[in-house]
Amino acid sequence: MTNPELKSSAPFDRATLEALLTKRFFYAPSFEIYGGVAGLYDFGPTGNALLQNLIQYWRQHFVIEENMLEVDCSIMTPGDVLKTSGHVDKFTDYMCRDTLDPKTVFRADHLIEAVLEARLKGDELARSQALNSKVEALNVDESDADKKKKKKNKAKSKTKVEAKRLDDSVVAEYKNILAQIDNFDCDALAEIIKKYEITNPETGNPVSTPAPFNLMFESSIGPSGQLKSYLRPETAQGQFLNFPRLLEFNNNKLPFASAMVGRAFRNEISPRSGLLRVREFTMAEVEHYVDPEKKDHPRFNEVAGIELPFLSSSVQASGSTEVTHSTIGHAVSSGLVANQTLGYFIGRIYMYLTAVGIDPKRLRFRQHMANEMAHYACDCWDAEIQTSYGWIECVGCADRSAYDLTVHSKRTKQDLCVSENLLEPRVYEKWVHEINMKKFGPHFKKDAKVVTEFLEQRTECELEDIAKELNGPSGKAVINVDGREFELDTSLVQINKATIKEHVRKYTPNVIEPSFGLGRILYSLLEHSYYVRKEDEQRGVLGFCPLVAPFKCLVLPLSGQADFAGPLLEIARNLRKLGVPARVDDSASASIGRRYARNDELGTPFAITVDFQTLEDNSVTLRERDSTKQIRATRDEIIDLVKQLVEGSTSWENVLEKYPLVNSESE
Amino acid sequence: MTNPELKSSAPFDRATLEALLTKRFFYAPSFEIYGGVAGLYDFGPTGNALLQNLIQYWRQHFVIEENMLEVDCSIMTPGDVLKTSGHVDKFTDYMCRDTLDPKTVFRADHLIEAVLEARLKGDELARSQALNSKVEALNVDESDADKKKKKKNKAKSKTKVEAKRLDDSVVAEYKNILAQIDNFDCDALAEIIKKYEITNPETGNPVSTPAPFNLMFESSIGPSGQLKSYLRPETAQGQFLNFPRLLEFNNNKLPFASAMVGRAFRNEISPRSGLLRVREFTMAEVEHYVDPEKKDHPRFNEVAGIELPFLSSSVQASGSTEVTHSTIGHAVSSGLVANQTLGYFIGRIYMYLTAVGIDPKRLRFRQHMANEMAHYACDCWDAEIQTSYGWIECVGCADRSAYDLTVHSKRTKQDLCVSENLLEPRVYEKWVHEINMKKFGPHFKKDAKVVTEFLEQRTECELEDIAKELNGPSGKAVINVDGREFELDTSLVQINKATIKEHVRKYTPNVIEPSFGLGRILYSLLEHSYYVRKEDEQRGVLGFCPLVAPFKCLVLPLSGQADFAGPLLEIARNLRKLGVPARVDDSASASIGRRYARNDELGTPFAITVDFQTLEDNSVTLRERDSTKQIRATRDEIIDLVKQLVEGSTSWENVLEKYPLVNSESE
Repeated sequence: MTNPELKSSAPFDRATLEALLTKRFFYAPSFEIYGGVAGLYDFGPTGNALLQNLIQYWRQHFVIEENMLEVDCSIMTPGDVLKTSGHVDKFTDYMCRDTLDPKTVFRADHLIEAVLEARLKGDELARSQALNSKVEALNVDESDADKKKKKKNKAKSKTKVEAKRLDDSVVAEYKNILAQIDNFDCDALAEIIKKYEITNPETGNPVSTPAPFNLMFESSIGPSGQLKSYLRPETAQGQFLNFPRLLEFNNNKLPFASAMVGRAFRNEISPRSGLLRVREFTMAEVEHYVDPEKKDHPRFNEVAGIELPFLSSSVQASGSTEVTHSTIGHAVSSGLVANQTLGYFIGRIYMYLTAVGIDPKRLRFRQHMANEMAHYACDCWDAEIQTSYGWIECVGCADRSAYDLTVHSKRTKQDLCVSENLLEPRVYEKWVHEINMKKFGPHFKKDAKVVTEFLEQRTECELEDIAKELNGPSGKAVINVDGREFELDTSLVQINKATIKEHVRKYTPNVIEPSFGLGRILYSLLEHSYYVRKEDEQRGVLGFCPLVAPFKCLVLPLSGQADFAGPLLEIARNLRKLGVPARVDDSASASIGRRYARNDELGTPFAITVDFQTLEDNSVTLRERDSTKQIRATRDEIIDLVKQLVEGSTSWENVLEKYPLVNSESE
Repeated sequence: MTNPELKSSAPFDRATLEALLTKRFFYAPSFEIYGGVAGLYDFGPTGNALLQNLIQYWRQHFVIEENMLEVDCSIMTPGDVLKTSGHVDKFTDYMCRDTLDPKTVFRADHLIEAVLEARLKGDELARSQALNSKVEALNVDESDADKKKKKKNKAKSKTKVEAKRLDDSVVAEYKNILAQIDNFDCDALAEIIKKYEITNPETGNPVSTPAPFNLMFESSIGPSGQLKSYLRPETAQGQFLNFPRLLEFNNNKLPFASAMVGRAFRNEISPRSGLLRVREFTMAEVEHYVDPEKKDHPRFNEVAGIELPFLSSSVQASGSTEVTHSTIGHAVSSGLVANQTLGYFIGRIYMYLTAVGIDPKRLRFRQHMANEMAHYACDCWDAEIQTSYGWIECVGCADRSAYDLTVHSKRTKQDLCVSENLLEPRVYEKWVHEINMKKFGPHFKKDAKVVTEFLEQRTECELEDIAKELNGPSGKAVINVDGREFELDTSLVQINKATIKEHVRKYTPNVIEPSFGLGRILYSLLEHSYYVRKEDEQRGVLGFCPLVAPFKCLVLPLSGQADFAGPLLEIARNLRKLGVPARVDDSASASIGRRYARNDELGTPFAITVDFQTLEDNSVTLRERDSTKQIRATRDEIIDLVKQLVEGSTSWENVLEKYPLVNSESE
């Protein structure tokens, strides 16, 4: 809707946007009057409305349109569940401490990033100084703008930048490390810290070898604190544990998806970057269950034609971040994206993000690299959005394979499988073992059970290996069960290939999981929506589309005239009755132009003005925020128009075709 | 919408409803496959949709229509905040243990309730047995229904009922205790346990003296666990802490309200009664800030005429639970309800509850008794809903006075006041102290500061008392500052009445807080919506209104005919695109009547059926759940009708006036 000709071309300035967001209470540090807590933020009336609108449209786009089974599960989670899922052991970041001041802690990868980036900047500075001294600087004084910028950069980063020339080969090494910073494990990070002499940038003190730090918040349940538990670090586990009930609810048919919107918690080592790395956040997650042998999607053709920028793991491994543009259809058929279902969700994610207002030109899909992948995932693509902080992971789309259902099923001995009645029986060959119970029991005595279990748990390949030995010339095979060796022979057990005829197919579904960080999407949207008008560079505008705008309509009087109060309140109440959030701005002290501008900062797309003509003929004007154009019609007509504009059943362009423009003398 | 003639008159049976709720996955114990955790529940697709619809309409009814400032604050809360609010010291229940088996714990008031209720039942039983033996029983065999009922009652309560006659005076005492069970403090509970020999009902072991147990879950924030914190026990504190920003957002004008919907946590001693007493739950709270001198409400006349059943604290103190019917207007003017704002919210709460489907005949407003009131409240009315568990507190409506803002302001030294510019200066007399600095400092030396602070913090009355002494014959006054005495004389300080002329009035707002337990409302709604049809007593119906129904429309084929699949999917997708949650039931194995009945259990109000005529003329039938009546029209017409019915812009009665009934031969 925004006409680019009306936008100022001044570069984006984060500090100005942040000042606006604080003033208009989009969000603020939690417990601010108590000094705040790092990584905890409260959403104010504007930020919360934006968040709720993002959630509401998410429900429409995913849950309702895709007929997903939305659930709402507990946040408090027993330790046992998260032990099984792998989070107790593996949900960690790597932390190191200042060795002389152990209270100062760093997230190892962030520390390396900050130090190397500072050194690269220092190198650039040294090179440009060398250049400048050659060229002879003409302007000795820095411009005011430059000074301001330097001050801000200093405030932004605690890491000092020293002008110091680096070898070209070192620059290349640093850039290579930064390109794959997410790909290093604990040992690799330790190695880098040692090799490049990374120290606490503020004190120069050496830092300790990085060690894993679990990111979950602990608590315990019950009056005697008997049950150790954690605040969930993601909403997925609750969905997996309800799989049997959900499958039954879906008449025992696959594929289907569950979904959840809710709070999750991560005890970040050193939260930073505002809403982008926080300790408590709202997620929206889908767990789409598919047959591992049929990962196609019935609606794939609806997204196949969408062209997107993809950044594959192999390109990143080569040290580059260059994207490849491809249709989703081609990405799947060429094997870049593993299957149709993954591709379908990538398309739906793209549709969602652009519908709420994310700039498609600042959006890319990046594949996770091997070491970076979460412990449960076998392939993962992130929707990354470009902001002033760089490219930010906002949505993950992972193939968790059968990992979660398998581990929970094993731990609880509950069946988390799907049984499919086959129309045609399935006939195939399989290695099977047959135990001669008469001899087996007496031979192995109390070990009989563990040996039997060992054999039952072997994969096809493993059984084939044992069979080869057993059916070989010796007629014997040695197996290693938890460190103990047992000898088998053909009198105890036979392993042969058999023909199996199955009428029911039983399998553990695979899970495709699109997972949305709503706070990150919200922050990116704020940056993408923000602009400054050419004719008024002092005030910013948040160009939200009506779908997500916190307030849909401003209602205001032309002036402080007492007669305006009646119609004003009636219009606001009528809009609210219709479910349209309306804000009244009747502060008589401010000019109408200033009040329009004030509400541009809230991103309110429409404004209804009551003026002297209203008192004569009951007509009011309607202003659209981005174009600042106005039309005039009766109160009821305008209220109805606003409702239609907000619902999306008409557009401002359509409205302008039907109603003549009026002069906005007042602005 | 429900025609009472169609309903079976069979008495409500909770076990049958619960079986339905589990089968249709409204909710289930969290972590069920791990054995579950007491007091934690997950909402399935139906229960969650119901919950979300309750929230969405809450937002429409309160936030949008009343123009409230909805915020979203952190769950993790530093200990300091909750220490100040009083929760660390006072947010407790009283717990006692089985003295011989200390792992078995009881909530003292619940234990007393269970034991005394069991004794009263035992008394009734003994009395009826005595009566029966006189009358001579004719039927020796119990009917099957009786047997069933007895079995259920036994399962319901662990507390054994023994037929034992009590004195009439003892019965009266027990009933009196039960009527005010919420009113007892720790000592009173200990007294009752001792006096009435309350023991563990299962073992008969004595129980320990009750002791306070804090209900908050603990955790800690940061990589070294430095910051002790709690999971919030209510959503109110985050709202209070943001008061300065919210006031500014509202252009520094009062009254206004903030609101929040979110999770809260209470480590209940012994959770019970399903969703009614849980450890994690969704609340919706409003904090309405008013001038303590102007607690009237501009929209009070909109609710003044509503007649409600009120149960005052004085009636309860007399041991009765008889309600008084009164209009809200009369309740406020007679002083039963303290002020208009409290009365206004009582009215709005009533409107909300009845709009979502709570039976107004099973709803009452009960005033808290003095000891029962939360530590911050000065008056409180609960909306209580009658269920098979008795009268359940579902919404609290408390006047928290200036408690919270005052304590947080004092602790943080932040100004949490409102400044009001007075048109006419306010002139009044006030006691003021004037310190003679030349003498005061040298006289009190290092104590000068504490004495000054002491004088500054005195109330009017206290200052007056000191002045009387000081201005008396001795010319001296002794004050006690934190246990130390200081002597003042008129050469050091003067205290006199002065005339004050204020152009700005500064005050701490009072807070009226309607607080909704959404899980309790949801459960009550399930009981109130449930009925059984006269013609089919085997299957229950959940008679949800379209506003809250989890699925709005069922779409189904008359039979398994392959041609039906196309139109079926198209209708479902068109409805979903319009934001109408639609469920398809195409299981060919079940008759259409059985499929209707199955969806009656989900509370789906409308059903569209594709049949042979659809293939001819594109028409479908529309069935309404409660009347089971059907009409027929074209697909597009019916889809549009369903949208209107769901939005509430038309009603089934209106539809029936326009479209002729068709025979539902298929049912």
